[in-house]
Amino acid sequence: MNSQLQLQEEAASAAVTESDMANAIRALAMDGVQKANSGHPGMPMGMADVATVLFGRFIKIDPSHSEWPDRDRFVLSAGHGSMLQYALHYLIGYEDMTVEELRRFRQLGARTAGHPEYGHALGIETTTGPLGQGIATAVGMALAERIANARHGDGLVDHYTYVIAGDGCLQEGISHEAIDLAGHLKLSRLIVLWDNNSISIDGPTSLSTSMNQLARFEAAGFDVQEIDGHDFDAIGQAISRARASSKPSLISCRTIIGKGAPNLQGSEKTHGAPLGESEVAAAKRELGWDHAPFEVPEAILERWSDAAARGAAERRTWLNRVAAAPEGAAFLETIDREIPASLFGALAEFRRQHRESATKVATRKASEMVLGVINAATDLTIGGSADLTHSNLTLTAGMEAIRPGSYAGRYIHYGIREHAMAAAMNGLALHGGFIPYGGTFLVFSDYARGAIRLSALMGQQVIYVMTHDSIGLGEDGPTHQPVEHLAMLRATPNLNVFRPCDIVETAECWELALKDRDRPSLLVLSRQNLPMGRSADSEENLSARGAYVLRATSEPPSVTLLATGSEVEIACAAADALLSEHGIGAAVVSMPCWELFERQPLDYRKAILGTAPRIGIEAAVRLGWDRYLGEDGVFIGMTGFGASAPAAGLYEHFGITAGAVVETALELVARASGKD
Amino acid sequence: MNSQLQLQEEAASAAVTESDMANAIRALAMDGVQKANSGHPGMPMGMADVATVLFGRFIKIDPSHSEWPDRDRFVLSAGHGSMLQYALHYLIGYEDMTVEELRRFRQLGARTAGHPEYGHALGIETTTGPLGQGIATAVGMALAERIANARHGDGLVDHYTYVIAGDGCLQEGISHEAIDLAGHLKLSRLIVLWDNNSISIDGPTSLSTSMNQLARFEAAGFDVQEIDGHDFDAIGQAISRARASSKPSLISCRTIIGKGAPNLQGSEKTHGAPLGESEVAAAKRELGWDHAPFEVPEAILERWSDAAARGAAERRTWLNRVAAAPEGAAFLETIDREIPASLFGALAEFRRQHRESATKVATRKASEMVLGVINAATDLTIGGSADLTHSNLTLTAGMEAIRPGSYAGRYIHYGIREHAMAAAMNGLALHGGFIPYGGTFLVFSDYARGAIRLSALMGQQVIYVMTHDSIGLGEDGPTHQPVEHLAMLRATPNLNVFRPCDIVETAECWELALKDRDRPSLLVLSRQNLPMGRSADSEENLSARGAYVLRATSEPPSVTLLATGSEVEIACAAADALLSEHGIGAAVVSMPCWELFERQPLDYRKAILGTAPRIGIEAAVRLGWDRYLGEDGVFIGMTGFGASAPAAGLYEHFGITAGAVVETALELVARASGKD
Repeated sequence: MNSQLQLQEEAASAAVTESDMANAIRALAMDGVQKANSGHPGMPMGMADVATVLFGRFIKIDPSHSEWPDRDRFVLSAGHGSMLQYALHYLIGYEDMTVEELRRFRQLGARTAGHPEYGHALGIETTTGPLGQGIATAVGMALAERIANARHGDGLVDHYTYVIAGDGCLQEGISHEAIDLAGHLKLSRLIVLWDNNSISIDGPTSLSTSMNQLARFEAAGFDVQEIDGHDFDAIGQAISRARASSKPSLISCRTIIGKGAPNLQGSEKTHGAPLGESEVAAAKRELGWDHAPFEVPEAILERWSDAAARGAAERRTWLNRVAAAPEGAAFLETIDREIPASLFGALAEFRRQHRESATKVATRKASEMVLGVINAATDLTIGGSADLTHSNLTLTAGMEAIRPGSYAGRYIHYGIREHAMAAAMNGLALHGGFIPYGGTFLVFSDYARGAIRLSALMGQQVIYVMTHDSIGLGEDGPTHQPVEHLAMLRATPNLNVFRPCDIVETAECWELALKDRDRPSLLVLSRQNLPMGRSADSEENLSARGAYVLRATSEPPSVTLLATGSEVEIACAAADALLSEHGIGAAVVSMPCWELFERQPLDYRKAILGTAPRIGIEAAVRLGWDRYLGEDGVFIGMTGFGASAPAAGLYEHFGITAGAVVETALELVARASGKD
Repeated sequence: MNSQLQLQEEAASAAVTESDMANAIRALAMDGVQKANSGHPGMPMGMADVATVLFGRFIKIDPSHSEWPDRDRFVLSAGHGSMLQYALHYLIGYEDMTVEELRRFRQLGARTAGHPEYGHALGIETTTGPLGQGIATAVGMALAERIANARHGDGLVDHYTYVIAGDGCLQEGISHEAIDLAGHLKLSRLIVLWDNNSISIDGPTSLSTSMNQLARFEAAGFDVQEIDGHDFDAIGQAISRARASSKPSLISCRTIIGKGAPNLQGSEKTHGAPLGESEVAAAKRELGWDHAPFEVPEAILERWSDAAARGAAERRTWLNRVAAAPEGAAFLETIDREIPASLFGALAEFRRQHRESATKVATRKASEMVLGVINAATDLTIGGSADLTHSNLTLTAGMEAIRPGSYAGRYIHYGIREHAMAAAMNGLALHGGFIPYGGTFLVFSDYARGAIRLSALMGQQVIYVMTHDSIGLGEDGPTHQPVEHLAMLRATPNLNVFRPCDIVETAECWELALKDRDRPSLLVLSRQNLPMGRSADSEENLSARGAYVLRATSEPPSVTLLATGSEVEIACAAADALLSEHGIGAAVVSMPCWELFERQPLDYRKAILGTAPRIGIEAAVRLGWDRYLGEDGVFIGMTGFGASAPAAGLYEHFGITAGAVVETALELVARASGKD
């Protein structure tokens, strides 16, 4: 390019206004939705001005190095406005976000899914769409930033987490849990831009809410501002002030949904459907946008590239700081979550010791013992509990709590907020540098479902420590006794559900959870004490097979008992009684992880399940068990909700006992041998 | 009793102070927990003074007629403090709450479960324990009261809903959704007494929250007050003011957890464990309580009975008003939710008409058509949606919305609040007089899980309208596409999950949902259009059998295709192709409700499933299906999360097509005939 042309282009770029930049977003959003004949144009058009200022003036990202650890995180909590993000990515120059991708919006295999999907395109920091998840995940990211900052200093870690949230995000309950936690912990690097357009799907938000959001966020400890979301300088000033605040920030951006569409703007009609060809044309006239669909003039692209150049420059400075820092190399390793090999050695040693002892402990206690080993060997793990620390046993010796303004610890009192805990753990994992684990009672996985699902969908290494896992919790009664939760969690794709039966299996399951970097794991642990099932054993991590013969018989078994967790004890007692009292050989198969078992070769699975009649034993509902029982198998478990009473009595009451297993086994054996 | 004794007793009763009354609660709570060696003494002891004023001075209940429709509702949202409620019930004279029941606290079969369980004892208005559920359910009750009041007038309906909530309730996300809705709708008869003791399980609440709760509730539209929760007159004045307010009220009661236990009060140690014999003794000395365990002096019982007498008198006056009111009889019928027989006649007629037509509509649309019939025939139904009215199609012609201060309508814009919607529906049902239904996308059953579980546990007739039920929703992508939700919901005890395949089945399922008065129903409905499957049929409601042969073969079938909802169309197309192209007879079994199928006699179930090889077809995960497939059956469905694309392409992409069914059927038939 000759210098005159270059000068001309620079002049053109200089003449480009932020309004032009924003209109590029609007045009692309309209075009993308129109082409797909599906999607949400209203939000991108309404928030185009805010996004332009945020990305144009402030955000610190380098699209050429989208994984740069010290980048700002951007979370589109109002995920339905995905065309806003895709348009921004195209304009700012992420190489994978081509105009062709914009044209393929919402088509099979496109990077431009209906809602932003983590992993589909560079720079998508988290999957959003289920409302409120984004803001709560962002709290975890902002927390991760502060913890990493406390460990590595301002030179290496110093970035913001920006969120665009809609009315829906702020109405969802999870937003309350999230902002309470963020305000309490003074996560000053969290900046929430609220698309305050007064419209939701049913119509004006006044149909369903009268909340004073500014007062609400202030009550939670946020710095709050309200601005005209179409006034570029007001937006800029507000973001500047928010960045300087010692509190997390809410900026209420008063906007017009669908701004630019002359006949529809301000109406819920722009929310979730294409504007239609004629309204798109009218909007483009209104905006003075005289370009073909998906076409953005070079001068505007040039202006947008300035933001990328700013980020690239910041990254280069940062790289110099990393190179200069004595701990720079160690920092990079941490960010990649490199687990020291010594940890796995220590876990193997732990298992070795405990195979030889015969300690009877609850698996939640076993988990605490294992965590003691893990947390001593690495500080990648960030622990916590939703206010059940001494029940979940998630706090190990020497772990300091994270406190408001003080982030050197590694234990989080998440409060009575299971949903925000799960989402914050997603954020901690997504940010990089940490392996979060957090505890609650298994039954309250209900409360965290929305975020657990996202852990699985995004393939994040989040470890759930779910204790009090059955009627075995006793007196608290049916509201606290999970019966359907194992089925619910096992049905969830890409989630490993572990239900170990003793100390050794608990250690094995923790090891597997730590080794599986691309998937959440959920440990289901007993409140009550359980005996050792694996007192004499090999070095192999048998839980890695998902299911294995815990107790074999000398001859082919006459009956096979399948059980998990606390019911393995019952299976073993029944096997003992069958042999000693009836001379019947019963194999016991422990099944700590169905998901891993399903990944074994068919031959292995067949061999483990065997050909003898089978009895499944689990203090939960039957759903899912038929897969392993065969046509004539019997299930011994729960058929409805639990009850309030001491645990032993409940097992009797619901007929989940060794006696019941023996009786059933005798029937099955008799039937199999034709004596019935 | 002679009159002198009577006078002496009256004098003794008059000398009894509210402090004595409150100490009776404390003593019983300590004794109950100590005897059970399990439970939560701290909350009952801390809130004893507040409860004494509420029950002693204000509450309008008649323990002898615990179901009296115009009683005040009392909800112990902090359900772990159940001994507070049981002690109150004993003191105020519910006949089923004997001292023996208090002694049996947390034992099998006792009315005094670990957490208050609806239906276990008279006067327990709702099951609580999972934190935040109580306050959100109470919003539904308070709303029910206002709707009933609008319909029947002050003379017949005029009562309060009182809630005792703890820190946990206010931290849970559901509380945000609930108070936003209550404040918006100006539910002035809702009074929340917050046990503000600054203690949660992990320790001081300052570990995890800095929320200014008064400011927060004020932002939501509540009248707020803060008082010393141990100052009887302050408590009385605050409740009086709250009753007079035109807004819902929050009263922050500053209390000392475990008040009275000299060495432990104010500490989390009193929260969830017995105080121990010596501390109980010390507390009783401190309180001047010189009575045997579970013993309450007659004079104190006498004072407590005054509250019951006040309630009984109020009930008698109310009965007079009912007798005098022209609409009194009709009102009583409404409260019992008597569905007019004409409704079922109209539904039968609707089915008749639509069997003869061949309209291709989405089952969500079919549901709207059915609702048109239902809502025209009865006004017991209260509709609503979590801001997806025009997607769920829950609003029928002529339904007016309920608005702040105006409760004559019968449609609720619940806002983007699935969890509070479900809990409020529980409250509407529990209050009596209404059959609530509410819509959201099936995937967001995740957000409502906690309250759906309580619908089932309490056996409440709440009808969930869950649309967009699979990858069939298309472009919105995996965050919006349920795959594990059918399994999750089917695993939940006492919940009927209906997935109809066409207009006729949709009408049948709605009919079944209306007829089952003691159980929630959940309708799983398609976004996409579906053809009629039942064009020529009998009058019988075939969905009532749970599963039935939709399409028989002339000879015994060579293969049986099992399907639900939108996949019935695929099964039928495959059966057609198998017959016409391969001369193979395939039976099609529609399975709209697994739960009802499981309740059929074994013979029926065997006959329906047949002996031919089976293929299960459902656009969801396999978990649960093996029960119906048999050893050699094949499942065609989802194995992971969905994707963003137009629906038809997704069915192809995931291999859920008639072609795939045909191919699989050919393999199975070949194998069965030994040709493989």
